[in-house]
Amino acid sequence: MSDAAEIRAQLAARQKNHALPRSLYCDEAVFQADLAHVFAREWLFAVPACQLVKAGDYATLQIGAYPVIVVRGADGMIRAFHNVCRHRGQRLCAKSTGSTPKLVCPYHQWTYDLDGKLLWAKDMQEDFDPRAHGLKKVHCVDIGGMVFICLADVPPPIADLAGALGRYLAPSGLKEARVAHVSTIIEKGNWKLVLENNRECYHCGGAHPSLCRTYSDNPRMTAMDGPDAASPDILAHWQRCEAAGLPSRFVNHPDMQWRLARIPLLNNADSYTMSTKPAVRGKRMGTIPFNDAGSLLFFHYPNTWNHFLADHAIVFRVLPVSATETEVTTTWLVPGDAVEGVDYDLKELTEVWLATNDEDRQVVEENQVGIRSPAYVPGPYSLVQEEGVIQFVDWYCNTLGARLGPDPALAAE
Amino acid sequence: MSDAAEIRAQLAARQKNHALPRSLYCDEAVFQADLAHVFAREWLFAVPACQLVKAGDYATLQIGAYPVIVVRGADGMIRAFHNVCRHRGQRLCAKSTGSTPKLVCPYHQWTYDLDGKLLWAKDMQEDFDPRAHGLKKVHCVDIGGMVFICLADVPPPIADLAGALGRYLAPSGLKEARVAHVSTIIEKGNWKLVLENNRECYHCGGAHPSLCRTYSDNPRMTAMDGPDAASPDILAHWQRCEAAGLPSRFVNHPDMQWRLARIPLLNNADSYTMSTKPAVRGKRMGTIPFNDAGSLLFFHYPNTWNHFLADHAIVFRVLPVSATETEVTTTWLVPGDAVEGVDYDLKELTEVWLATNDEDRQVVEENQVGIRSPAYVPGPYSLVQEEGVIQFVDWYCNTLGARLGPDPALAAE
Amino acid sequence: MSDAAEIRAQLAARQKNHALPRSLYCDEAVFQADLAHVFAREWLFAVPACQLVKAGDYATLQIGAYPVIVVRGADGMIRAFHNVCRHRGQRLCAKSTGSTPKLVCPYHQWTYDLDGKLLWAKDMQEDFDPRAHGLKKVHCVDIGGMVFICLADVPPPIADLAGALGRYLAPSGLKEARVAHVSTIIEKGNWKLVLENNRECYHCGGAHPSLCRTYSDNPRMTAMDGPDAASPDILAHWQRCEAAGLPSRFVNHPDMQWRLARIPLLNNADSYTMSTKPAVRGKRMGTIPFNDAGSLLFFHYPNTWNHFLADHAIVFRVLPVSATETEVTTTWLVPGDAVEGVDYDLKELTEVWLATNDEDRQVVEENQVGIRSPAYVPGPYSLVQEEGVIQFVDWYCNTLGARLGPDPALAAE
Ligand code: FES
Ligand code: FES
Ligand code: FES
Ligand SMILES: [Fe+3]
Ligand SMILES: [Fe+3]
Ligand SMILES: [Fe+3]
Repeated sequence: MSDAAEIRAQLAARQKNHALPRSLYCDEAVFQADLAHVFAREWLFAVPACQLVKAGDYATLQIGAYPVIVVRGADGMIRAFHNVCRHRGQRLCAKSTGSTPKLVCPYHQWTYDLDGKLLWAKDMQEDFDPRAHGLKKVHCVDIGGMVFICLADVPPPIADLAGALGRYLAPSGLKEARVAHVSTIIEKGNWKLVLENNRECYHCGGAHPSLCRTYSDNPRMTAMDGPDAASPDILAHWQRCEAAGLPSRFVNHPDMQWRLARIPLLNNADSYTMSTKPAVRGKRMGTIPFNDAGSLLFFHYPNTWNHFLADHAIVFRVLPVSATETEVTTTWLVPGDAVEGVDYDLKELTEVWLATNDEDRQVVEENQVGIRSPAYVPGPYSLVQEEGVIQFVDWYCNTLGARLGPDPALAAE
Repeated sequence: MSDAAEIRAQLAARQKNHALPRSLYCDEAVFQADLAHVFAREWLFAVPACQLVKAGDYATLQIGAYPVIVVRGADGMIRAFHNVCRHRGQRLCAKSTGSTPKLVCPYHQWTYDLDGKLLWAKDMQEDFDPRAHGLKKVHCVDIGGMVFICLADVPPPIADLAGALGRYLAPSGLKEARVAHVSTIIEKGNWKLVLENNRECYHCGGAHPSLCRTYSDNPRMTAMDGPDAASPDILAHWQRCEAAGLPSRFVNHPDMQWRLARIPLLNNADSYTMSTKPAVRGKRMGTIPFNDAGSLLFFHYPNTWNHFLADHAIVFRVLPVSATETEVTTTWLVPGDAVEGVDYDLKELTEVWLATNDEDRQVVEENQVGIRSPAYVPGPYSLVQEEGVIQFVDWYCNTLGARLGPDPALAAE
Repeated sequence: MSDAAEIRAQLAARQKNHALPRSLYCDEAVFQADLAHVFAREWLFAVPACQLVKAGDYATLQIGAYPVIVVRGADGMIRAFHNVCRHRGQRLCAKSTGSTPKLVCPYHQWTYDLDGKLLWAKDMQEDFDPRAHGLKKVHCVDIGGMVFICLADVPPPIADLAGALGRYLAPSGLKEARVAHVSTIIEKGNWKLVLENNRECYHCGGAHPSLCRTYSDNPRMTAMDGPDAASPDILAHWQRCEAAGLPSRFVNHPDMQWRLARIPLLNNADSYTMSTKPAVRGKRMGTIPFNDAGSLLFFHYPNTWNHFLADHAIVFRVLPVSATETEVTTTWLVPGDAVEGVDYDLKELTEVWLATNDEDRQVVEENQVGIRSPAYVPGPYSLVQEEGVIQFVDWYCNTLGARLGPDPALAAE
């Protein structure tokens, strides 16, 4: 059986509303399929646009074997390229972030403009065509201050997301925000276990003592059935926020690849702090009108979830490293004029989610160890608590299955 | 050629009384076959029963990809389970030893009784059947204070071993012993090299200066042909010990998968100490009647060898980690009422075998490096010195070969 | 498709004068083919002969999975053997260098003479033939003080190299030299990237500030077309040196597997030092008649390049570790009677090439990261600057291609 046929068989054999079979979390062939058919074909969140302040500011990321660079051009546009020199393939920029007037290859100094054009290559022969040796482009779009990239030749449609996300993010002032902190960790677990972990709060009570001060683990907080279907407290929150000009109600992609909704925090909390008070004092993000606006939740499969609060925002990026290793990067954004030590204390700003991330890392890693056992049997998800996980695994299986192509045996019938 | 066919070919091609071909010590496919057909099918030594003193005491171990937990129940019975939650596969217990009233999954707190029954699972749907989601059992038996487990659905017969080992161990007081020290090391060599190393003392003179003070490297010590066939000094030792109620003479499995025999120490030594004197002073294990009872040797393939002395016992557990990595856990047991610092000095108790283990680790690791060479040619074992190694590799090749099934080409004839 | 067929396809698909396709730098199957068909069949530089001063002095090296020992015999001859015991395959000598009267296996003390003969094996049976269990020989030849080895049963011809290299090295006094320093580093890149990096100075200006004080990055320094075709300054240097008895002009293997030529240093420098002055003061290597003799350059594919100066020599050895890891060993040789701290300062002697090696390591590692990208496209080499790289990749592709055998599909026609 080919790798694709084996994966198709695994997908076909899975039991509805149950965790996935072992191979889908562990096997190298599945990981390569995930890279090729999911991560190399979907729009991926790369960086907040405000991280690239001026022309020449760049950030790099590694998506499986693909090194990518995102850079702001002289014209202010943000573009993405394969971070690979067109001469002998050197990685152009090794640092995770930096600033440079031109992209100069560290090997033989071939020099590219910030828009990817090859400007200079020493001692090349007559018939060498610089125009044929510009950097290879990666699709790139800035939606409301979040930069998404896509490695595919032809990316999937993004207009619906762009419309909704742009409208919801507008009051949160992402574009004028400032990066207060970046944390990158490696979790020793498959990227799908990282996503599953994020899509439920069944584990929150046991795992997240600090987060649970302000974030409700009640599943009605996130399991909603439509723009007008939610519990009374959420409906009331939506009414109050929308009256104040904050798009809030539930909106989603038909397949649940992404979702937006603004939820109230627990105990009238203003922010994810130990004190429940805002971490940034006396300033709010964008045009948010009051402190207790709760959290605008946004996820987009396969690689991001986010919390946009009144006083700050926390954006998460997930990148697969190997079948059993995943990089999670968390970025804390504050109002552009907020000054560390004056308007906020960095420890107070970051401590709840640094702890939460580490707690999630631990459960993900132990999950991977258990699933690796040949004795592992996928168990049933709780329909009450794990609806979000079910949506994620369904989206994943449908997406991967469709791209692996129809079963040739069935097709032949 | 399939993996199984290739391994069969390697087994068939090996030369009698010679070291094994390179692939059997190095290849990933052979390692997976060893796990599936040897470690997942044979009885394996897990822990001394006395390590689990009271209800809820547990120990965990990792056999290839299988995490397993051994736990003493409220009824005093020791049981073993796959250490994997039936919900989404979390490893239940991550620590190597601990104590807990119930087995609570760290992810979503599904709670299991010490006998494996699922007691509680929050927010599961109506049609969820807790009785169908208890922990998966691993066969488990306590023989004279040594806990053996078996991952197979149908374990091989163990009555003969149980009879002989139970009888031999009885006077050694394993059940009432106390764990004085546990050492776990990783040797960068295939598990079979670890076993081969243990099955001969051809290397002892060169490798083990401390052990050789008290342990004879004379091959007639361990190469015996039956219950009444041994050198005169051993026969004399057997007579004296058996007269005093200590089962001592050679007894073995027909295929030499296990063997029991009590041997005298060298130079009238009482114990494996630098001084040759007992490490535990004024107390003896169980009902052993005198200090110079020598060592009751017990090995069982594929994963344990042991020394039961008058004043203490040393039990060894071998678990494969990868084709070229093996975990060796050594546990020192002392009489249950022996007090560290009063009745024995921990350094004195452990130093000879800590040194011996490290010396063996070094030779095993250099053996692996040399065998990895394509220029390696399996050489002849010494019939005088390495009879035990020959028995081990024959047992291994016969066992694996039988389970890989007959050669389909031959079967077709 | 078999591995060989896939590699043949990659070789056939490569574009002339362009970097190689990704798989040839990254894939495990290609790495195994490189080991089997290049490193296990070509003559490889092992050590300078003067490192083994007296009988019993040895050096070990690891060529892929092959451990090898090179040892000076009681008769003064240098021999090479597989560093693997004929009993159970122990690596005989683990240290990188040492001295021993006999080669004694650390496992069971089988003892071999320095010429590989098995002298002693304890307790072996009657029919054991020690003569059939000597160490397996590796072909070994000392050319002008450089020891080459070959793992093949039938090594390729070496007479041409021996003649030319012997003649060129004679005045450099390698045999009477002394090892002043050895540095071994691991570069996280394919061995071919290490070689390519060495075969051009297109990168020198950007990467090697210290080396560029004394070494010209002008490509006419190394790109020569024959014994009488070079730029005027080099022709003048050849005339002056040859008049003084130093073989200097360009000489090469027809396929450019090796090349010899003496080049002047930059700015009338005497040596590769920060000061441009000799590192060794008041002494010269062998019979070199003046300080400004420049550098005798010698490379031999697949694993060595060298600089022989008036005051010292620097020899380089490249050994593949994995598809993406390569060991580079650099040895500094000084006149046999030069005394550290008196005649030379070790830091001054070594600093330029220690820095240069580390700079090259960095570019090689970033090259590997970029080439790993599926978006990598092999770009064109500069015909002006990278002629040496083109020669190397052509030699490699021709050599490997020939040994993989003709395409069976084509052969069938
Ligand atoms: S690899 Fe970038 S300039 Fe050569
Ligand atoms: S995985 Fe154990 S309770 Fe969820
Ligand atoms: S392996 Fe060398 S003597 Fe036994
Ligand atoms: Fe969480
Ligand atoms: Fe030993
Ligand atoms: Fe260089």
